[in-house]
Amino acid sequence: MEFLARQSRLFCPFLNKTSPATLRALSASPASSNGVSNLQVAARECPVMGAAMAVQSSRSYATSTKPLQFEQSSQAMANETSIDSVHAKAGVFDTSKGICKHGLAVMKAAQAATGEVAEKEASAIKIASTSTKKMQSNTFNYEDFYQAELTKKHKDKSYRYFNNINRLAKEFPKAHTASEVERVTVWCSNDYLGMSKNKEVLKTMRNTLETYGAGAGGTRNIAGHNKHAVELEAALADLHSKESALVFSSCYVANDATLSTLGSKLPDCVILSDQLNHASMIQGIRHSGARKVVFKHNDLVDLENKLKSLPIEVPKIIAFESVYSMCGSIAPIEAICDLADKYGAITFLDEVHAVGMYGPRGAGVAEHLDFEAHASGRPENTIMSRVDIITGTLGKAYGCVGGYIAGSAKFVDMIRSLAPGFIFTTSLPPSIMAGANTAIEYQKMTIRDRAAQQLNTRYVKSKLAELDIPVVPNPSHIVPVLVGDAETAKIASDMLLERFDIYVQAINYPTVPVGEERLRVTPTPGHGTKLADNLVNALETVWTELGIKRVKDWEAVGGLAGVGVKDAKPVQPIWTDAQLGLTPVTGVQADNVVVEKETITAIPIEAAA
Amino acid sequence: MEFLARQSRLFCPFLNKTSPATLRALSASPASSNGVSNLQVAARECPVMGAAMAVQSSRSYATSTKPLQFEQSSQAMANETSIDSVHAKAGVFDTSKGICKHGLAVMKAAQAATGEVAEKEASAIKIASTSTKKMQSNTFNYEDFYQAELTKKHKDKSYRYFNNINRLAKEFPKAHTASEVERVTVWCSNDYLGMSKNKEVLKTMRNTLETYGAGAGGTRNIAGHNKHAVELEAALADLHSKESALVFSSCYVANDATLSTLGSKLPDCVILSDQLNHASMIQGIRHSGARKVVFKHNDLVDLENKLKSLPIEVPKIIAFESVYSMCGSIAPIEAICDLADKYGAITFLDEVHAVGMYGPRGAGVAEHLDFEAHASGRPENTIMSRVDIITGTLGKAYGCVGGYIAGSAKFVDMIRSLAPGFIFTTSLPPSIMAGANTAIEYQKMTIRDRAAQQLNTRYVKSKLAELDIPVVPNPSHIVPVLVGDAETAKIASDMLLERFDIYVQAINYPTVPVGEERLRVTPTPGHGTKLADNLVNALETVWTELGIKRVKDWEAVGGLAGVGVKDAKPVQPIWTDAQLGLTPVTGVQADNVVVEKETITAIPIEAAA
Repeated sequence: MEFLARQSRLFCPFLNKTSPATLRALSASPASSNGVSNLQVAARECPVMGAAMAVQSSRSYATSTKPLQFEQSSQAMANETSIDSVHAKAGVFDTSKGICKHGLAVMKAAQAATGEVAEKEASAIKIASTSTKKMQSNTFNYEDFYQAELTKKHKDKSYRYFNNINRLAKEFPKAHTASEVERVTVWCSNDYLGMSKNKEVLKTMRNTLETYGAGAGGTRNIAGHNKHAVELEAALADLHSKESALVFSSCYVANDATLSTLGSKLPDCVILSDQLNHASMIQGIRHSGARKVVFKHNDLVDLENKLKSLPIEVPKIIAFESVYSMCGSIAPIEAICDLADKYGAITFLDEVHAVGMYGPRGAGVAEHLDFEAHASGRPENTIMSRVDIITGTLGKAYGCVGGYIAGSAKFVDMIRSLAPGFIFTTSLPPSIMAGANTAIEYQKMTIRDRAAQQLNTRYVKSKLAELDIPVVPNPSHIVPVLVGDAETAKIASDMLLERFDIYVQAINYPTVPVGEERLRVTPTPGHGTKLADNLVNALETVWTELGIKRVKDWEAVGGLAGVGVKDAKPVQPIWTDAQLGLTPVTGVQADNVVVEKETITAIPIEAAA
Repeated sequence: MEFLARQSRLFCPFLNKTSPATLRALSASPASSNGVSNLQVAARECPVMGAAMAVQSSRSYATSTKPLQFEQSSQAMANETSIDSVHAKAGVFDTSKGICKHGLAVMKAAQAATGEVAEKEASAIKIASTSTKKMQSNTFNYEDFYQAELTKKHKDKSYRYFNNINRLAKEFPKAHTASEVERVTVWCSNDYLGMSKNKEVLKTMRNTLETYGAGAGGTRNIAGHNKHAVELEAALADLHSKESALVFSSCYVANDATLSTLGSKLPDCVILSDQLNHASMIQGIRHSGARKVVFKHNDLVDLENKLKSLPIEVPKIIAFESVYSMCGSIAPIEAICDLADKYGAITFLDEVHAVGMYGPRGAGVAEHLDFEAHASGRPENTIMSRVDIITGTLGKAYGCVGGYIAGSAKFVDMIRSLAPGFIFTTSLPPSIMAGANTAIEYQKMTIRDRAAQQLNTRYVKSKLAELDIPVVPNPSHIVPVLVGDAETAKIASDMLLERFDIYVQAINYPTVPVGEERLRVTPTPGHGTKLADNLVNALETVWTELGIKRVKDWEAVGGLAGVGVKDAKPVQPIWTDAQLGLTPVTGVQADNVVVEKETITAIPIEAAA
């Protein structure tokens, strides 16, 4: 990086004007998180700097046996250049002001480089250059291999640039960027209910931190089991009306560990997996070594055909989600339970995007399907009681971090006893477990936040519909705004951030299929009509300036991802008007709403039911 | 459980005297964490209650096609009974007071049952009984299968009973048990330096919580990337003098995700794995699908023979640890780097039990090996710089939670871009990342805590040696006290807790080999001579009363795990007297030591080096 900085000053008029200290800062940040500094990223696209970097690279990797790298890289650079030309067209930065072609990236880096951190990073980079690797010439060149993998990501546009977003508890849903004085409105967080800034949660966490310290200090078996774990697991078992629950580092780990353990232990197990299942379930199934049968998304006919083809006595797991996060679709849970019973399968239901968000007590979609019964008591023979295994997260609607499973006592005890991903890892900190417990209990007591969230979702969806801006139709709280192209989605996201102070991350392959790239908008109770109108107006501008397809354009090409499909049946939200306690669809003024203990029952469950 | 409680009163004189509310509490706790209540555990061993439970079980699982369950269970119960007879012999509970045979478990449950929680749990259990599973008779019986797996764990004595231990920040290293007024001294936590109660760490966490809220609200790519992640990763890259670092939910996930990604991506990769590697590395290697070659623990000859047998051009990863946590052995890092260079391999070094603990800046054993050079500046061509990949944790010596990798920018960027376990999971909370960062920076500035920890380790080891109590010889901070039998280890642990208010978890198979069961003692800077003397005296009593083998007894049978091996070369601690700034071996009075900012340089690195 030192070399790069020196070379820069020889070639580039922009960099030439900049002080050495600032250059070091730019070259370091954010190298620590993605390994490539913003300066490098920008420089690759500059014909002058690109050449300088090629010289530098060839010095570093002179021992390479595969000199393909630079051809590949320059091809990737050629592809990338188009982003900037569109950026310029979109007015994301003003070329008329004489800022050089990679101005955006450089400007971003400059914002990120707050003195101290940048100094530290620069120092780290300097030290790293002392690393020496003496390899013989006929050995494998690891660094070239890593570069080749990265080049692939750049080529297919799936390389990720992280945005530095610091969500502010007291200004929810606002955040500051790398600059502490700059504010953006976050429209894509999974802190769906704003529980991360809930006063009760923060109070519990503060007190727990004070009394029990920062970390748990051990695995659950060795010094890391405590009353916080006991209480949290009791609250979760109660939430889902199951005998037992077990907490993991994350729901990624919960899904991976549980499916891999179950699938590997059950003799000749077959796992039937919804086509759109989350990566954690896909990994868990792969790690189990069990036979995997993928069924079409939410397709009961396909699922039944596949179940039917398997011997009745063979153990089977139907693994699926209640709310699919990227399209917002909801599984036919009851019908899947029927099929499970008919063919001797058990059901594994991921409620990660639904816990806290659905049902009178926030237990998820399975609870929501018997809303009135659950609201008025502790019903028997519910859809929720028919699901064998429920998994969920403490990191989204509950605002903390961590994941869990809930199920029969024996099942949970078996996973507790056998899953390496549970056994051999440090427990979550006491303050996190206690905070999550408070969030769960809080959301058990009131539907206020999730009702407000649903109303705001309806408002955003209806406003976008008025403007013919395409939203993938779904009955949930997710607002997937279809773009249909990776580069355009990234540019739209950058444009929202740079020009409108609105942060919505672009969702590209492999998270969604190629061609179905989108902006995934997630309203919260804190996103009232004023912020929603800002968002909708900004999207209208972006759609117009970038010429992104409207619903009518998708109709003209036969529709995509449910958008613009002729004669499609309208999708009804799973939260009914009656459950929300209203009839007309309106937004609620809930900016910076803070639910105090006294107002918890402002919208009582009984009234809403 | 309701049924169980009712039946109990008909049969058992002890339970008959107890109120229904208390019984419900007993039967619920700690059902949420291991799925089996303490009452059930105890009841299985009672001839009367055991029969009652068998009736209950046969009602619940009448559809079972495999009626083996109860034979298996009763065999398991028969095996377990012996624990209690030894318990009685050891005086862990007093049979003369007329408490029934399973008194210990019942008493423990009674302590655990603080009103509110127990009520909640009891309520959860009640609800769970409404669960209905309608299966045809010829389908697989899942519940029986889970039970059979649990029975296996009971049979081989690897079933784990968690102790409810609540470590108190202001009374470090004390904790309360399920009862908030009871105190025990924790001697087995991995909060090696007491950083979980460090004032600077807690202050940072409190402030971050206040400003940025409870959770990150998203994955790193979607709203979960922030300055805390950037700063933490910069601090970690700096710590290990690497270009880049990347933070994960835990080091279990870091190891699993990194090895599985590397091993699956590198063409025809072979992973050479130390025989004693941690479960997370074993899983990562398994998940990679790469060829795995296990080499004998710390055996350079075996490793070289295996490297030699592989083609030079094939990519190879040597995966090993610096400090092996269960025996305290330390890897020959430099020699392994030599072999890696010679045979074209890269090195993957897990410093989980070493970061914060070794080296002048706490970077681990790799740094410690060039102690004086690192203490006096930023040296080039160090052993640490030769290691390609270093992984570590934020949850042990740094007192928080989370894990990381550090390495070249390209390597880290590739893992960042490809590892599902990194990509598809919620970021650690801002307060955790900020707290960990403070802990790292704090430990970079002073060797005081780790030097005190080493002195206390030396003190405990020397006192145990005086009493001929066997400690697996090692050069690190771990004190593995050899018991050599699973049941005895559990009883010794229970006895320490019940009679001496000392908590040291028994370590049994599969964490250590069968026959090498141990009590793993971990001194901290807070465990001064007074607490150490208490521990040593308690161990002396336990060893005498239970008749556990001394060093001389192991000598008589030829030695085990390095204990009682004739003519063994004495093992020297890796922290030298000079590095500790002293010559004679003495303990330090460091009870409840609180290092204030002003005293950070009390033992300056320069003086110690």
